[in-house]
Amino acid sequence: MRAEARTATTGRLAPPTDRFAALPDRLPAVELAARLPAGFRCGATAAGIKASGALDLGILATIDGPASAAATFTTNRVQAAPVRLSRQHLEATGGRVSAVISTSGCANAATGPAGDRDQADLTDAVAEAVGARAEHVLALSTGLIGSRLPVDAIRRALDRLVPAGLSGTDDALASLAEQLRTTDSRPKAATVRVSLANADGSTALTVSGIAKGVGMIHPRMATMLALVLTDAVVEPATLGALLPPVVERTWNQLTVDGDTSTNDTVFLLASGAAGGAAIEEGGGAFATFAAAVEAVARSLARQQAADGEGASTLLTCQVSGAPDDAHARAVAREVVRSSLVKAAIPGRDPNWGRIAAAAGNATLDGAAVPIETDRLAIGIAGVPVFDGEPIPFDRASLSRAMAAPEVLVRVDLGLGEGSGEAFGCDLTEQYVVENSAYST
Amino acid sequence: MRAEARTATTGRLAPPTDRFAALPDRLPAVELAARLPAGFRCGATAAGIKASGALDLGILATIDGPASAAATFTTNRVQAAPVRLSRQHLEATGGRVSAVISTSGCANAATGPAGDRDQADLTDAVAEAVGARAEHVLALSTGLIGSRLPVDAIRRALDRLVPAGLSGTDDALASLAEQLRTTDSRPKAATVRVSLANADGSTALTVSGIAKGVGMIHPRMATMLALVLTDAVVEPATLGALLPPVVERTWNQLTVDGDTSTNDTVFLLASGAAGGAAIEEGGGAFATFAAAVEAVARSLARQQAADGEGASTLLTCQVSGAPDDAHARAVAREVVRSSLVKAAIPGRDPNWGRIAAAAGNATLDGAAVPIETDRLAIGIAGVPVFDGEPIPFDRASLSRAMAAPEVLVRVDLGLGEGSGEAFGCDLTEQYVVENSAYST
Repeated sequence: MRAEARTATTGRLAPPTDRFAALPDRLPAVELAARLPAGFRCGATAAGIKASGALDLGILATIDGPASAAATFTTNRVQAAPVRLSRQHLEATGGRVSAVISTSGCANAATGPAGDRDQADLTDAVAEAVGARAEHVLALSTGLIGSRLPVDAIRRALDRLVPAGLSGTDDALASLAEQLRTTDSRPKAATVRVSLANADGSTALTVSGIAKGVGMIHPRMATMLALVLTDAVVEPATLGALLPPVVERTWNQLTVDGDTSTNDTVFLLASGAAGGAAIEEGGGAFATFAAAVEAVARSLARQQAADGEGASTLLTCQVSGAPDDAHARAVAREVVRSSLVKAAIPGRDPNWGRIAAAAGNATLDGAAVPIETDRLAIGIAGVPVFDGEPIPFDRASLSRAMAAPEVLVRVDLGLGEGSGEAFGCDLTEQYVVENSAYST
Repeated sequence: MRAEARTATTGRLAPPTDRFAALPDRLPAVELAARLPAGFRCGATAAGIKASGALDLGILATIDGPASAAATFTTNRVQAAPVRLSRQHLEATGGRVSAVISTSGCANAATGPAGDRDQADLTDAVAEAVGARAEHVLALSTGLIGSRLPVDAIRRALDRLVPAGLSGTDDALASLAEQLRTTDSRPKAATVRVSLANADGSTALTVSGIAKGVGMIHPRMATMLALVLTDAVVEPATLGALLPPVVERTWNQLTVDGDTSTNDTVFLLASGAAGGAAIEEGGGAFATFAAAVEAVARSLARQQAADGEGASTLLTCQVSGAPDDAHARAVAREVVRSSLVKAAIPGRDPNWGRIAAAAGNATLDGAAVPIETDRLAIGIAGVPVFDGEPIPFDRASLSRAMAAPEVLVRVDLGLGEGSGEAFGCDLTEQYVVENSAYST
């Protein structure tokens, strides 16, 4: 998708009015809750994959035939069995989906041919249980790499869950969000409701997403597990046009630890149950719908960053004045990826030199992003600290301002009109503690 | 420099005889000590840059006219004043150097035009003190970004140090290694002595290097501060041909925290005091000399990795079976860069899934490195854990084997003849503690 098309569809950040303050927000407000759109039913149960006995098997199914679907997947060259299977099924059906099986506690990655057979066996079982064709079933999986799925236990749990355990309630979607969790401290959900005016009056639409974080998070042309549902009437091709630029501005700008997972997946499913005219690319309805999807994606990415393993603080970097948006996003991403910038946050240390160094390290498609130090401006929590040269500031007062749930770093390159943002978190001792013995 | 030239000069890793064991070493053994080559004198003192009163000003000078020099510098777009000055001086002189001024505790980076004037003032003072032209003086600097050098205090210290405090002893070079330290727990030095046979008999040569780490370490086409000295007779152009491939295989394969510094610099200086015929590219003497330089560089990079901020363990990854050496190095580097691989080391957790995921994330010049999971092999500390599919192993016994000062991760891609290695360290709680309030 070309840059101009992306800009036209939705959500480009507004030009800055202040080189040190937050960029204006153009997306609709989200509700931080799971609201199951019409046309879907779902549920979750404990199949015994997680030793803790927590929810680890989830099923989402459509009520009235296949939904339209689009997806993005990890670019890690070591791809998990559920990623390969879902990619094949979406290609075979041209983007039609009747059910999704979600397992947590086991990634089913690097498990060899046996892992592929396990995943196909489960997909067949789900297809039979919900009365759909196997290729209309997709799979999501997260957890330890290298271990096999307990297929028999999952089959038994599936018998309990489908159809008796599925329902069309908001609570059912909330249980699916709960089921997705691994090291997440809380489930993640976001909903936007919009009304589309059309020839027949107007159609009320729901766009609701759930996601999990919070380790091995550095999505690249893809993202961590997320499921975005809507009752809108939209063809798969339209969803396929809408999703990549949204992911580029939201989940691809999220990093917790710089490691891209083998299982990253986003599914966007539209049941069509809301009725009304189909949303088509280019119209006003498309822009409204795309903004709703992007608002949900952005909120989920921010929730994932804020809940990063060991994190206490959401670290947001907004960049303006770049040659174009892609360069701005690259700089923002490098700043929130920097271990040194991240480690300065728990100590409330306004160490802007690390921000300058991180910005200077940004690359796009393998080439250095142009930075001219004498045009560079940096602000932390709204306080200007560098503008071509150091700006004196009250260190104690800025340090206090950094003791907030979110710290905003603003960088202006002074070179052009491009802008972008990225989401990360602080690096704390707790991150190391959590990750020093995860598999043992 | 083309791949075949690199291979021809020196130090290419030998083809593996075992896909899980360490690759054979083809470089000469090093002595872990500073041995000042003939033709140089040096010394260090405390100028008051570091609040602790530790050594923070060092001077290296030639005894008999300018030495031949080559250098590599950081590719960070935010470049420190000493980097810009040294680059200009080397270009102006075609690689002739009479003195190097080294300051630690202050990076003199992102200090605006005033920082450039400070650096030039000091260079002029050094030139006058040692009786050389200003453009024959280079500068090294490390420490906090964004703070100014205390020029007057440094000038006063310079008056004490030159010439009375300079000497041609090994201890003087050791004091320079001590002076380079910031958060390093110990100084770093390595020496190789070689004998070159020639028409007149043979010439004994010394190659000795010092370096500092240990944070903001992720050299990219460059490296952290290092100074490699030799008494060999070599023209600057020959040094310039030799240095980049050596740096590519050694310092560019070093990472502590994924952040590339604004001040990274390597200087390679040859005094010529050993006498004998000049070493020229292509001959047998060149290969012997290049291997000595590479052995020193590799040892220093390993010392820097082992002393990474908060680190308890040297993490080495050796990759074979890649399409070529550059791809092998890219995979090795991604494995030792992975926060999740690094965090698994202190817990002695043989979590090979993270190694597979990290290998799958490797990119070279912006493009994914080809990995085929069914051909991939992984070994940890000599124990095979994956070969197209998981290999059962004794977890308790491997965990005990990982409780060593160095943990070797072996990855074989099964795709070609390329090999390479990279050096990193574990990620510990202490890293976060050290970096949460460095500037305050």
